[in-house]
Amino acid sequence: MREREHAGAGRPAVVLLSGGLDSATVLAMAREQGFACHALSFDYGQRHRVEIEAAKRVAAQVGVASLRWASIDLRAFGGSALTADIDVPKDRDESTMHGDIPVTYVPARNTIFLSYALALAEVLGSGDLFIGVNAVDYSGYPDCRPTFIEAFERMANLATKAGVEGHRLKVHTPLIELPKVEIIRKGLALGVDYGLTHSCYDPQPDERHPLGARPCEHCDSCLLRMRAFGELGMRDPGMGGDTV
Amino acid sequence: MREREHAGAGRPAVVLLSGGLDSATVLAMAREQGFACHALSFDYGQRHRVEIEAAKRVAAQVGVASLRWASIDLRAFGGSALTADIDVPKDRDESTMHGDIPVTYVPARNTIFLSYALALAEVLGSGDLFIGVNAVDYSGYPDCRPTFIEAFERMANLATKAGVEGHRLKVHTPLIELPKVEIIRKGLALGVDYGLTHSCYDPQPDERHPLGARPCEHCDSCLLRMRAFGELGMRDPGMGGDTV
Repeated sequence: MREREHAGAGRPAVVLLSGGLDSATVLAMAREQGFACHALSFDYGQRHRVEIEAAKRVAAQVGVASLRWASIDLRAFGGSALTADIDVPKDRDESTMHGDIPVTYVPARNTIFLSYALALAEVLGSGDLFIGVNAVDYSGYPDCRPTFIEAFERMANLATKAGVEGHRLKVHTPLIELPKVEIIRKGLALGVDYGLTHSCYDPQPDERHPLGARPCEHCDSCLLRMRAFGELGMRDPGMGGDTV
Repeated sequence: MREREHAGAGRPAVVLLSGGLDSATVLAMAREQGFACHALSFDYGQRHRVEIEAAKRVAAQVGVASLRWASIDLRAFGGSALTADIDVPKDRDESTMHGDIPVTYVPARNTIFLSYALALAEVLGSGDLFIGVNAVDYSGYPDCRPTFIEAFERMANLATKAGVEGHRLKVHTPLIELPKVEIIRKGLALGVDYGLTHSCYDPQPDERHPLGARPCEHCDSCLLRMRAFGELGMRDPGMGGDTV
């Protein structure tokens, strides 16, 4: 991290920030590359509004030029455990996680998120979008695949003034081929405090937790990060101390 | 129009509906093709909320299987006369309208709208999106060009479950090569009541008008439709009677 530099210095980039482990790492990587990072977070009617608190803390810790919120309400559309009342699957092993598209899939989510990022990039005069998609641990989400990102980038360059005027817009996906362990190793080297991040699909309200809720430790997302920290011989600092 | 058929019969399609002349025509064309049309409208913090009233009336007149609203607030991003406080250009001639990208351009608007349509299509199990973009009268908007639509369609087929499972999603743009006069001729043949539509960039509050505001009759959008009705030897039924 370039601690001594002002967070607003450098070329502007738009960084999608959920407050989870992956996006926190991406933000730190974009900062390391010298970008002035304009973080964009979403409140999409999800059950875990604790993500909002996590995004704020991560942005403050890593350092951003700005943090913006966009409200997206996909509940009227239905269709996913993250926005409707469908049970989040628990305690699945790796073989069950991969393969099928999980019920936690939100329709067209990354397409919508990247479209907003594109709009903000155009207004800021930025040609660089960062998103923490991961094709290794992607658990069957179609919009985390490299082919999707390439197609979005191509479309984005035709959609905007920048494209018309011959500038190139790039969608950076620095985590796309990294196993979770490598993502964490990278973030730790850059000083990310993973205790501030929140990735759980089914957080449990808990006023004693600094984010107002604690991770369930049984959904796919919790299991993946806990195992990765375990492989590094560490306790996941985002999990409750009493049950790990 | 298939008046005798129930609006919910047929394969589902998602139709983007602004309440303007073009989208009303597209809706009637999708109905004519036998689709059960799920209309999707947006309130994107624009100044002319009169569009909402127009969309409701058009949907009711043409016939839809459902009408949904999505709120999108791009004002935090700035950058356009339609969402910020920049003057809408008035009384421009054709040569000024075309060429430059106008200040009324909303960054990444069609990308965002189509992304929401894609999410709804996925939930409804629909493989057909309709959008009333027009490359003839597009006044320099990059996201109204056929190359943009093709790139979006390609991306959409990689973004979703449908794409993964081998179904094809199609973005229908039945107006893309039609001059305004031909669009109106088509809509009139299908029974569209253009008196219910609203296309103005700068509507003037007027309680006597059924939509709560009257068109300015001087912005690019008003001028284009008034001229087209004129070429057909008609008065634009969406304009005030006293000034035409």
